[in-house]
Amino acid sequence: MNTGARYSLKHFILWTRHKIYWLAVMATIPVLLYEFANWHWIAIPWVTIAFIGTAAAFIAGFKNTQSYNRTWEARTIWGGIVNSSRAWGMMVKDFVRHDDTTEEKKLHRELVYRHIAWLTALRFQLRESRSWENVKTKKYNREYLAYYTVDEWVSQLDKSMEPLLSAGELAYIMSKKNRATQLIALQSKQLRTLNENGQLDTLRYVEMENLLKEMYDHQGRSERIKNYPYPRQFASINIFFILLLVILLPFGLLNEFAKLGQYGVWLTVPFTVIVGWVFTSLEQVGESTENPFEGSANDIPITSMSRTIEIDLREMLDEENIPAPIVASNNILM
Amino acid sequence: MNTGARYSLKHFILWTRHKIYWLAVMATIPVLLYEFANWHWIAIPWVTIAFIGTAAAFIAGFKNTQSYNRTWEARTIWGGIVNSSRAWGMMVKDFVRHDDTTEEKKLHRELVYRHIAWLTALRFQLRESRSWENVKTKKYNREYLAYYTVDEWVSQLDKSMEPLLSAGELAYIMSKKNRATQLIALQSKQLRTLNENGQLDTLRYVEMENLLKEMYDHQGRSERIKNYPYPRQFASINIFFILLLVILLPFGLLNEFAKLGQYGVWLTVPFTVIVGWVFTSLEQVGESTENPFEGSANDIPITSMSRTIEIDLREMLDEENIPAPIVASNNILM
Amino acid sequence: MNTGARYSLKHFILWTRHKIYWLAVMATIPVLLYEFANWHWIAIPWVTIAFIGTAAAFIAGFKNTQSYNRTWEARTIWGGIVNSSRAWGMMVKDFVRHDDTTEEKKLHRELVYRHIAWLTALRFQLRESRSWENVKTKKYNREYLAYYTVDEWVSQLDKSMEPLLSAGELAYIMSKKNRATQLIALQSKQLRTLNENGQLDTLRYVEMENLLKEMYDHQGRSERIKNYPYPRQFASINIFFILLLVILLPFGLLNEFAKLGQYGVWLTVPFTVIVGWVFTSLEQVGESTENPFEGSANDIPITSMSRTIEIDLREMLDEENIPAPIVASNNILM
Amino acid sequence: MNTGARYSLKHFILWTRHKIYWLAVMATIPVLLYEFANWHWIAIPWVTIAFIGTAAAFIAGFKNTQSYNRTWEARTIWGGIVNSSRAWGMMVKDFVRHDDTTEEKKLHRELVYRHIAWLTALRFQLRESRSWENVKTKKYNREYLAYYTVDEWVSQLDKSMEPLLSAGELAYIMSKKNRATQLIALQSKQLRTLNENGQLDTLRYVEMENLLKEMYDHQGRSERIKNYPYPRQFASINIFFILLLVILLPFGLLNEFAKLGQYGVWLTVPFTVIVGWVFTSLEQVGESTENPFEGSANDIPITSMSRTIEIDLREMLDEENIPAPIVASNNILM
Amino acid sequence: MNTGARYSLKHFILWTRHKIYWLAVMATIPVLLYEFANWHWIAIPWVTIAFIGTAAAFIAGFKNTQSYNRTWEARTIWGGIVNSSRAWGMMVKDFVRHDDTTEEKKLHRELVYRHIAWLTALRFQLRESRSWENVKTKKYNREYLAYYTVDEWVSQLDKSMEPLLSAGELAYIMSKKNRATQLIALQSKQLRTLNENGQLDTLRYVEMENLLKEMYDHQGRSERIKNYPYPRQFASINIFFILLLVILLPFGLLNEFAKLGQYGVWLTVPFTVIVGWVFTSLEQVGESTENPFEGSANDIPITSMSRTIEIDLREMLDEENIPAPIVASNNILM
Repeated sequence: MNTGARYSLKHFILWTRHKIYWLAVMATIPVLLYEFANWHWIAIPWVTIAFIGTAAAFIAGFKNTQSYNRTWEARTIWGGIVNSSRAWGMMVKDFVRHDDTTEEKKLHRELVYRHIAWLTALRFQLRESRSWENVKTKKYNREYLAYYTVDEWVSQLDKSMEPLLSAGELAYIMSKKNRATQLIALQSKQLRTLNENGQLDTLRYVEMENLLKEMYDHQGRSERIKNYPYPRQFASINIFFILLLVILLPFGLLNEFAKLGQYGVWLTVPFTVIVGWVFTSLEQVGESTENPFEGSANDIPITSMSRTIEIDLREMLDEENIPAPIVASNNILM
Repeated sequence: MNTGARYSLKHFILWTRHKIYWLAVMATIPVLLYEFANWHWIAIPWVTIAFIGTAAAFIAGFKNTQSYNRTWEARTIWGGIVNSSRAWGMMVKDFVRHDDTTEEKKLHRELVYRHIAWLTALRFQLRESRSWENVKTKKYNREYLAYYTVDEWVSQLDKSMEPLLSAGELAYIMSKKNRATQLIALQSKQLRTLNENGQLDTLRYVEMENLLKEMYDHQGRSERIKNYPYPRQFASINIFFILLLVILLPFGLLNEFAKLGQYGVWLTVPFTVIVGWVFTSLEQVGESTENPFEGSANDIPITSMSRTIEIDLREMLDEENIPAPIVASNNILM
Repeated sequence: MNTGARYSLKHFILWTRHKIYWLAVMATIPVLLYEFANWHWIAIPWVTIAFIGTAAAFIAGFKNTQSYNRTWEARTIWGGIVNSSRAWGMMVKDFVRHDDTTEEKKLHRELVYRHIAWLTALRFQLRESRSWENVKTKKYNREYLAYYTVDEWVSQLDKSMEPLLSAGELAYIMSKKNRATQLIALQSKQLRTLNENGQLDTLRYVEMENLLKEMYDHQGRSERIKNYPYPRQFASINIFFILLLVILLPFGLLNEFAKLGQYGVWLTVPFTVIVGWVFTSLEQVGESTENPFEGSANDIPITSMSRTIEIDLREMLDEENIPAPIVASNNILM
Repeated sequence: MNTGARYSLKHFILWTRHKIYWLAVMATIPVLLYEFANWHWIAIPWVTIAFIGTAAAFIAGFKNTQSYNRTWEARTIWGGIVNSSRAWGMMVKDFVRHDDTTEEKKLHRELVYRHIAWLTALRFQLRESRSWENVKTKKYNREYLAYYTVDEWVSQLDKSMEPLLSAGELAYIMSKKNRATQLIALQSKQLRTLNENGQLDTLRYVEMENLLKEMYDHQGRSERIKNYPYPRQFASINIFFILLLVILLPFGLLNEFAKLGQYGVWLTVPFTVIVGWVFTSLEQVGESTENPFEGSANDIPITSMSRTIEIDLREMLDEENIPAPIVASNNILM
Repeated sequence: MNTGARYSLKHFILWTRHKIYWLAVMATIPVLLYEFANWHWIAIPWVTIAFIGTAAAFIAGFKNTQSYNRTWEARTIWGGIVNSSRAWGMMVKDFVRHDDTTEEKKLHRELVYRHIAWLTALRFQLRESRSWENVKTKKYNREYLAYYTVDEWVSQLDKSMEPLLSAGELAYIMSKKNRATQLIALQSKQLRTLNENGQLDTLRYVEMENLLKEMYDHQGRSERIKNYPYPRQFASINIFFILLLVILLPFGLLNEFAKLGQYGVWLTVPFTVIVGWVFTSLEQVGESTENPFEGSANDIPITSMSRTIEIDLREMLDEENIPAPIVASNNILM
């Protein structure tokens, strides 16, 4: 996520410059035909453009709305992960009891660290790439990757989980397909043992199982947004309609600008670029908000949020070496 | 669902080509009357079209919004099925206990396999056809069926459930009307026995019953979307208004294009096709998104999701022969 | 609900024909004044109409959206009733236990049949008439009643509940104001007895009480939609604005059509009818969707859904004489 | 709430007549200047008006949408109160047990009557006035108060609660700031005593406490809508923009009507009134829907709903003298 | 929040005056060029402006909608805090029991006061500044700060919590990063002790832990809105498009006003200011609603709500010196 007041206009223009060039070319062609080939009949009536504009505006607006909803829901889910994680820390500390304080502390640490391992596995899974994501396939997005680092792309999952799990558990988990899922199953397994050994009476045990169920809900909701894109049929017509609109735009503007006098028609080029830029930028911003876990500058900051949870939980355990929060790089917080 | 970046323009044009032909014919008629019968009075004022366009755009936009909502809710419900299934696996393993480990494993397997049978029965029920669905009644949708396979249409329910249920249970279930409903009832029946036999104390038993209740909720919500279409009164006026709009469109464009000079009026044909195509495509995309369980290319991928759940559950049981995930065919994942 | 692909255009035109006649008359008057009285000043500028059109379109669109929401929420509530009913059947069977199997079966049947009685009482209550409902007050809706039957209007509540309740309970319930409410109270009363007699331990008892509480929620939500209409202040301005719009419409079209030449002005009549029909149909469809429990063709099919629940529950009890599902009559399912 | 099919046009015109007068005056001034001072330059281009109209329409539409949402949420909350109240009645009757039937009945009555007292205190609190409410400050609303009575304004809270509480409790409650809050606290206090005395085992006790928590939720949600108006910054620009629009409207219409010939310009006055009336009525209806507990004709009928609950609860207690439902006066139900 | 009927027009104009000045300057430049440099070609066709206006209106409307949603959600969350706090007070009083009444009262007070400390820590955390907030960075907002006081900016957290916590707990809490989080953990710690000592049986204990979990949910939801702004990519294009629109506006109006005669073109200046003011005010109001916890006049009144909760809780404890509610200053309630 961007943590500044706004993107700088310079950055934004750079990010959209390819479309600006393309628009300039597309606008120049009809003007040349009009002026030099004298094809005045290509100056089509504005009402046609206006009608297509209405449909394109609807579908682009709709896409932006749904992209926003996807991002906001993703943030809400991860907010829920923060809340459930704090509750997990609290319940671990006060529900899991042992006559031996050292033993109790060890149990608490195990259950909390395995939870942090789950967060780690989950954020690695969510930052993997999908065939419909744009951050690595579109040139302007790849360029922008220079401004920030995606921890999940430069680190190794097993290395990242090593300080959090026993060697046996680490190996077991790495052998599984969906590691986050099996980590929760491991938590449940330990709770069963605690329940059988009497460190956790059944009522409190069931409460904690329900909290694990809540973690599955959070994970599954994140995966839903990750694995189910903005429906491609809507994304497709969005692209087709916007394209159609900006291609026809200069033809519609010719007549209007021709009225300005001899050279007026040439103003078609800058104004096609301006109007076209507005619509293609709207589309490009929507597209870059669609997938909140793809590693783009507009992602939900799950690396940073996981760290925040880790800090809260370690403070609950009254640990000493609390790691520092993650800070934004060039206003981009991941 | 389509898993690509977008539908190819070629596929999309092919899929909408029947309406393009029809639009071309509908647009040519008024031009012929205008040019050769010299009926200039048929060139009606644009404001009429604009007004109908507003109403048609509202109702088409509304339909697309609600179709999207239906699809997204369907995906959310099935995301919930994933979450509850994982919780089911976890609770089966840690709540159902037996002194004899082999016996315990057998119990776990029975409860997990019957759950997979429920998923199977449910997806077969959801992929049955309804009188308002389009995938088999519209020619362009039937053509598109060549690109992918609907497992529930080519497989047999009883064959698919055979490895998951005992012969007695299979026969019992196949004799019932709503098989998914009665499968959950069977799960509950076994839980009762376990509770009576002391393998499942009452507190944990009630928790698991609540999870079965949650399965009924997921199933019922899927059935709601399946059995209650986008209200046909709204679908009807949508079709009537869009039809009215594209029929009147060339009459409204005649005057505008006539201003372009001698042959300008002929441009009415391509531009009616272009504008009409935008509106009918919007409508056609909405229609093909309306019913997320009909077996169309834009369906929720419930076959594939059921497989994902199966993989997760079998990994929880630490089984060996885990089936592979289902892969998309021509970018279509079912 | 309509279960077809759409309403036939013929039925739809018949259903809206009164407004078409009225529009034709309202459009002819200004044309006559313009042509024969030569009152050319009555051809008011289009911008006025466009402005009123914007406000009318907003408020009509808003009403359709909210009517849709009301209907969809009603369907969701009744979907919830299906889910809770299945859970009720499951819990009755596995929670209520008796050493004597015959006695146990009798208890199960009582609790399930009384639940079906509740469904019956509820659907009778929901299909009573309210002062703001349209199905019996508007001529076009009364005409359409010929195509289907509303069971709750032709049957008697006490006769319908007779096979489901003991004679004493039936008399008690018929003496109450809100019968559905008191039926749930009777269920709770029996559960108390079962709890006191030890056929239902307290933990399972409380779970079942919570399910009864859920039934009260479903019932209360249905009653909310039944007893609280789309706010009449919004419905009122909707009617006023649409009326104003279609009355002014021909005055605004006069000038536009007058430009078409000598008889062009007469085209004002058919085009006022067409445009006016679009707006009044939008309004009429919204109005007929507003109240999802009034007995209209666009109602939620609560008679049929109650039957589906009855089938599921009786199959759970492994009964023999399962009633058949209700089928649509002329594509209308109630 | 209005329980009729709609507000009569006559009532509606009367209710909005002050704005009609004002609009007529505001429209006449520019016409006089145009005609008699010959200031033709004041006829400003329509596009300016159209642009302001777009912004005003958006913000007015937004306000109506949110007002509707506030009202609908308020109704939903009170629907929830109905549901929880019925559950309260059911649980009181079947959870609170005493060996002595008379004593048991007395306990039930106390708990149910105190609940009705809570409803009473709550509705009195919700019908108090707030600085942003309109029902007493706007002349047209005060006039309309003649058509109905607000029970909470003409009755006394202590008198209304007298039959429902013991004298001691009544005095205690009247000494508190938020009486509804402290009434729930009293319920909880009695439950504690019942639990300590063994008339209510802990499991059922906790269930009933959760129901009291639910009552706090309902109360708090009602208070949220009561104490937090539609944000005044949005309400403010709504008023400013609508005002700006209707003031500029006649200036924009002058040119359009001037084209109609010699006296055409005078039509600016009626059409400014018509168009202006549409926009100001939209605003006035929105305003009168904003605050659903202020005592206006468009309020949620909380007096009547409280009575309905009272009837249901007393029928559950099998009482004899059940009060009659509250009926609408001039179609207004409070 | 503003508690008046509306903002005074004077205040509003003052608050937006900087943009009015800027708009006047931006509008004068093209008029001068048109009139004195005779650059008539700069009068660009209106359709261009209209198109950009559509996109700007959509994105500005969208921002206002989402800002409203953020504010309303924030209010809903804090409404939830009110409800949970009352439930906390009720459960503390009736669940935590001690044979010694004095000791019991002490326990109750501790648990209630620590809860008020949590409210205090939370509101201090929420009123800290973020890099994207506007209340301190925009001149017009800083000016408006003269009308009210933000308690969290003028008071000290430790001083404010001193009367509510023991010295040891205060020191412990002040050493932590997220104090609110650790205060809830302290509550849970005391509950564990009470449970171990038998003053709180396990069933009631688990209920109260769940209430603490609810507090974490409320806190985390508030933090979500605090720490995740309206996405900056949308905020950025909003500013770019509105800017583009108002810069081009006078160029588009030139032609329209030029038609009014010799000096008509000068009317471009006031009307650019009026129309531009409408759009920039819409944007400015949206911006000032975006962040409901930043300390602006449009904030959720969390200081005042915390006081309300404190009053309710102390009345539940039957204390004497209840503090007075916080009153609005210049109609601004914080």
